Amino acid sequence: MDWNGEIEAARARIAGHVVRTPVLEVQGFGLPYPVELKLEQVQHTGSFKARGAFNTLLAGDVPAGGVVAASGGNHGAAVAFAAHALGIPAHIFVPEMAGPAKIALIRSTGAELTVVPGEYVNALAAARAHEAASGAMQVHAYDAVGTVAGQGTCMAEWEEQGLRAETVLIAVGGGGLIAGALAWLQGVRKVVAVEPETSCALHAALKADKPVDVDVSGVAANALGARRIGEIAFGLAQAHLGASVVVSDAAILAARDALWRERRQLVEPAGATALAALMSGAYVPAPGERVAVLVCGANVAPDPLG
Amino acid sequence: MDWNGEIEAARARIAGHVVRTPVLEVQGFGLPYPVELKLEQVQHTGSFKARGAFNTLLAGDVPAGGVVAASGGNHGAAVAFAAHALGIPAHIFVPEMAGPAKIALIRSTGAELTVVPGEYVNALAAARAHEAASGAMQVHAYDAVGTVAGQGTCMAEWEEQGLRAETVLIAVGGGGLIAGALAWLQGVRKVVAVEPETSCALHAALKADKPVDVDVSGVAANALGARRIGEIAFGLAQAHLGASVVVSDAAILAARDALWRERRQLVEPAGATALAALMSGAYVPAPGERVAVLVCGANVAPDPLG
Repeated sequence: MDWNGEIEAARARIAGHVVRTPVLEVQGFGLPYPVELKLEQVQHTGSFKARGAFNTLLAGDVPAGGVVAASGGNHGAAVAFAAHALGIPAHIFVPEMAGPAKIALIRSTGAELTVVPGEYVNALAAARAHEAASGAMQVHAYDAVGTVAGQGTCMAEWEEQGLRAETVLIAVGGGGLIAGALAWLQGVRKVVAVEPETSCALHAALKADKPVDVDVSGVAANALGARRIGEIAFGLAQAHLGASVVVSDAAILAARDALWRERRQLVEPAGATALAALMSGAYVPAPGERVAVLVCGANVAPDPLG
Repeated sequence: MDWNGEIEAARARIAGHVVRTPVLEVQGFGLPYPVELKLEQVQHTGSFKARGAFNTLLAGDVPAGGVVAASGGNHGAAVAFAAHALGIPAHIFVPEMAGPAKIALIRSTGAELTVVPGEYVNALAAARAHEAASGAMQVHAYDAVGTVAGQGTCMAEWEEQGLRAETVLIAVGGGGLIAGALAWLQGVRKVVAVEPETSCALHAALKADKPVDVDVSGVAANALGARRIGEIAFGLAQAHLGASVVVSDAAILAARDALWRERRQLVEPAGATALAALMSGAYVPAPGERVAVLVCGANVAPDPLG
C-alpha cells in the first residue's frame, strides 16, 4: 500500500472541508517536561473523524442511496456532517451507549439516525443489514483505507505545523487514527498507543499476535470501545508501533480534569486518554525525549451548555 | 512612551512563564467569510491577564510585603498565579460579582483573598487601603504601563504566528488588552473595540471625549465591568482605534454557544464578546477585509467539572 500517496491524496481532497487544528506546547500537568498538543477536538463535529469521513465521501462514487455508517458516536456525527455538507443522504446507526450528546449532534445534521440497543458491534451489524438492503455505501469507522488515509492527514498536518517531538501518544479505539499516524510516519517518529484498561483491543491483539475480541467498558468506551482492533491498524502496529500502554479510568478522568483546569480545554474521556499515559506514568519518556499528545475528541456528556 | 520597546522588553521578560497560545482560521459561525482566532483563554489561569501580571512582577522591585491586586476575578487569578510561581506573597481583592469559579481559582493558588461587597471599584478601594497600610506593591488590572505592555505581547505573538487579518476585534473592559494591542500595532492593523451594551466604558468615553463613569451589568460584567476606561487605553484609542461597537447580552451568549457547538471551545461571556460583534452584525467587514478575533477568557461559571 502506498500510504504516503493515499494520505497526500486525502490532504488535497479534504483541504477546505476540514479545520487545520491548532497546536501548542505547554509545561504543566504535573510533568517535569513540556508537552506538545494538537487540539484536534476543534475539528468539525468535535473529533478527528471528519477527516476520514470527508476523504471517503469525496474519493468514492457515492451511490444514489447515499452512505451508511455505524459508530460509537463520533464517526457517525462526522459522516453525517460531511454528508450534509456535500448534499449526500446519510443513515447513521449508533449504539445506545453513544450517549445523548453524540446522538443530539448527529440528529442536528439532518441525517437519518437509528439507535441500536447494546454496543458498537450491534450498531455495525444493523448498518451492514441496511447497506445490503438499500445499496447505500458503508463508511467504516476505522478499518477502511479511505478512513485511515483521512485520519493520517492529521499527523501530516502536525508535521507541517512544526511538530518537534520524537514521540507521539495517541488514544486507540478501533485504530483508525493511530493507523493513519503509523501509515504516515512509517517509523520516523515513535508512536505510543494508549488504551483504557477496560477497552484495549490493540493491546490484547498485540499480546495474542492477532486481533481478538475484548470486553469493552469504562468512561471512554463510548468513543474507544471497539471490541476488536481493525486489521489495517493491527498490521501497521505490528510493523511500526513504538509502544502499547493502558491506563485506568481514574487516570483518564484526572487527565480530563487537568486539561480543563490548566488549559481550559473541555474534552471527553477519550480525548484525555493519551495524556493520561504521561500523567499516570504508564509511559515515561527517556531523558531528553520530546513528547506530543494528540487531543482527539470533545463530545462531552452532559453538554455543558445544556 | 516607547511602546514598542516596552512590549519587546515584556516579551523577553515573560518568555518561559506564559503560554504561546494557539491560533487557527475557521469558516463558520454563520458568517460568509473565514475568521482567524487566537485562543488566549488557554493561557495560565484561563485569560490573557497572566501576561501583564508576570511582566509587572518580573520588571519591578517587589517589596517584602509582596503584591496586592483588585480584580473582577481574572486579573486577580493571574496575579495570584504569577506571585505563587515567583515565590512572592499576594493579597487579592475581588468583588462578590467575580463569582465562585474565579474565587475558587484564586484560592487554589494559595494567595490571600478578600471578597468585597459590590463591584470592581469597591474591590479597588479596599486594595488601595491595603497597599497604603502594608507597603505591598499594587498591580493594577489595566491602567499601568507594565500591565499594558504585558498584554501587548499577545498581539506581538500573534503577528509572529502569521496573523493575516487587516482587522482585529477585541473585547474591552478596563482596556488593558486593547491598549496593549493598540500600543503594539500603532495603526498598522485596524483594531475594533467590542463592549457589552451594558458595560461600555470605552464607548461612552469616546462619545464624551473623556473617560466617564458608566453603569455596569450584564452577562460579561464580572470580566468586562469596569466603571471607567483606563487613561492609557483611552489615550491609545483616541490615537489609533479603528472602530468602537457594542453588543447585546443575547449576542454574547449566541457567540458563546457557537464557540462550543462549532469549535468545542467553552468560554466565559467576555471571551465570546469580540466574536459576537461579527455574528450580530455590529461589525460588518468590507468585501475582502480579513478579520481576526481574540478569544480572551474561559473562567466559566458554574465550573463544568463541578
